[in-house]
Amino acid sequence: MKPFNLVKDIIAERGSIEEVYWVACGGSLIDLLPAHMLLERESRRIASSAYTAREFCITAPKRLGEHSLVVACSHSGNTPEVLDACALAHERGAAVVALTDDADSKIAREPLICWVYPWGADVPAGEVPSGIAPLIAAELLDQQEGYADLADLYQGVAVMDDVLPAARAKVNAELAGRFAALCREHPFLYIVGSGPNFCQTYGFAICSLMEMQWQNCCYIHSGEYFHGPFEVTEPGVFYFLQMGSSEFRAMDERARAFLEEHTDTLIVLDALDYGMDKVPASARAYLDPVLFYAMNVELRAARGKVFDHDPDYRRYMGVVPY
Amino acid sequence: MKPFNLVKDIIAERGSIEEVYWVACGGSLIDLLPAHMLLERESRRIASSAYTAREFCITAPKRLGEHSLVVACSHSGNTPEVLDACALAHERGAAVVALTDDADSKIAREPLICWVYPWGADVPAGEVPSGIAPLIAAELLDQQEGYADLADLYQGVAVMDDVLPAARAKVNAELAGRFAALCREHPFLYIVGSGPNFCQTYGFAICSLMEMQWQNCCYIHSGEYFHGPFEVTEPGVFYFLQMGSSEFRAMDERARAFLEEHTDTLIVLDALDYGMDKVPASARAYLDPVLFYAMNVELRAARGKVFDHDPDYRRYMGVVPY
Repeated sequence: MKPFNLVKDIIAERGSIEEVYWVACGGSLIDLLPAHMLLERESRRIASSAYTAREFCITAPKRLGEHSLVVACSHSGNTPEVLDACALAHERGAAVVALTDDADSKIAREPLICWVYPWGADVPAGEVPSGIAPLIAAELLDQQEGYADLADLYQGVAVMDDVLPAARAKVNAELAGRFAALCREHPFLYIVGSGPNFCQTYGFAICSLMEMQWQNCCYIHSGEYFHGPFEVTEPGVFYFLQMGSSEFRAMDERARAFLEEHTDTLIVLDALDYGMDKVPASARAYLDPVLFYAMNVELRAARGKVFDHDPDYRRYMGVVPY
Repeated sequence: MKPFNLVKDIIAERGSIEEVYWVACGGSLIDLLPAHMLLERESRRIASSAYTAREFCITAPKRLGEHSLVVACSHSGNTPEVLDACALAHERGAAVVALTDDADSKIAREPLICWVYPWGADVPAGEVPSGIAPLIAAELLDQQEGYADLADLYQGVAVMDDVLPAARAKVNAELAGRFAALCREHPFLYIVGSGPNFCQTYGFAICSLMEMQWQNCCYIHSGEYFHGPFEVTEPGVFYFLQMGSSEFRAMDERARAFLEEHTDTLIVLDALDYGMDKVPASARAYLDPVLFYAMNVELRAARGKVFDHDPDYRRYMGVVPY
């Protein structure tokens, strides 16, 4: 499937799209958030909202209808909350696109547009949700209103396939050992980031560390940091700062300056040192999350080795009833 | 100032409002979020977004213009990020309403509609931002599109003045002592909540605990809890669950059932036991945050006494350069 054709067909069928809802849970929701922020920032007419799937069904926005596009994602294709959300959207007459890794899953049997994506470290950035979703947003924007930075975004997505292998090697050589060692010495840590990349600040916390490593931690927005959370900073409190490469970086730079002065336990991962300078400037904000996701994967794997905790092991998810 | 007249005058001047931006930082942003969620859920035409002020300036939404309403809040009236956001909005021709506690502050001298509110535990719920903001959202909705639940919301805001004193007494008698004692025994806790009240889940963490008590903690959405964060739950890990009284409660109930089974260190504050049953059902989602804010204040005060840490003391905010 191609974002251009997908969007073209939806617009042809609907006349126009007036609002987009990005709906998923946990890691899959995280991959949709930068696309939501792109649309919210750039569109002069389309409203955009993002929801964890259960909350979407409870809140059921009044304007959800025939001119709405719902982009849902369920990696397994069997997430009950996402299936419910897709059913609600379909019932209201919305166009529904569901991204999933499994062509044989429940979601693939629903009356919706199903985009089955491949998965794995070698899959091109444009073929997984974190690449597909911003391209859907950008195509919708371009085909309905024009989007001058569309070509830059496509180019940026392609460049990520060169950026990631080198970045993985670099983070393992330079940061992973220290990260795992600091996790040994501290019962919890704060992860700090901003802009569209805040999705991966959240993702590092809830997926890579809480879910896959049983590591206590918290996620803090670099801009909000100065309006409360910074009071907890002191030597011995462990911070991991995700420095973005885009215009949102100004917030991360301010946080870095404060953190360098007020804690002795800081790791900074600067996207500009990890290849994001090769991405066109207008696309960086939406592709920093692709970099940081890949870095999160390496860091949790490194921690997993030191703690003898396989990131694929679960004690509750899919194991006990809930 | 009255929400009805404020909104009437803005609509009269602008013809119509097409989008609303809720812009502030930290605790002030928290007070605007339920209003954003009300509008996003109920409006068939108005788009709504909420931003921490610095991010709003960086992202500067393209549609921000003459048919936009920006509702900003700065308690001190001197928050630089909020002043910048108001200046940007004014430059783009938007209607700007700024809420502040200080009539002599910088924001009160800007060319915008300034709403000076009183502050303190005895001030009626309808006269502080957490009451004003949902009423502005509801009036805008009602005057442009109709909002069947408007009267219920006004009634609910009035009822909160009866609910809060009894709730404060109850939380101090029943939960505050155990909360402070558990903070002594645990380096870290998770606060769990959902729906519009998630703003106060976040607020309990970043304002009441990190800022005012230097207590390490994290905020988790009850719906998202099952998509990653629950793997970190085990006996000895401290959770504080905010059970809402509205339709979003279903997510909190599911979290409670899991937490009761998988940790031995759980405090549940159930809004329905704290007077929210007296609030009209349609208004509960937007007024639970008023209850939980008041509860957060009592709990941090109780912790402060046990730790000899005055919640008004700051080591960085307004003290050191940043």
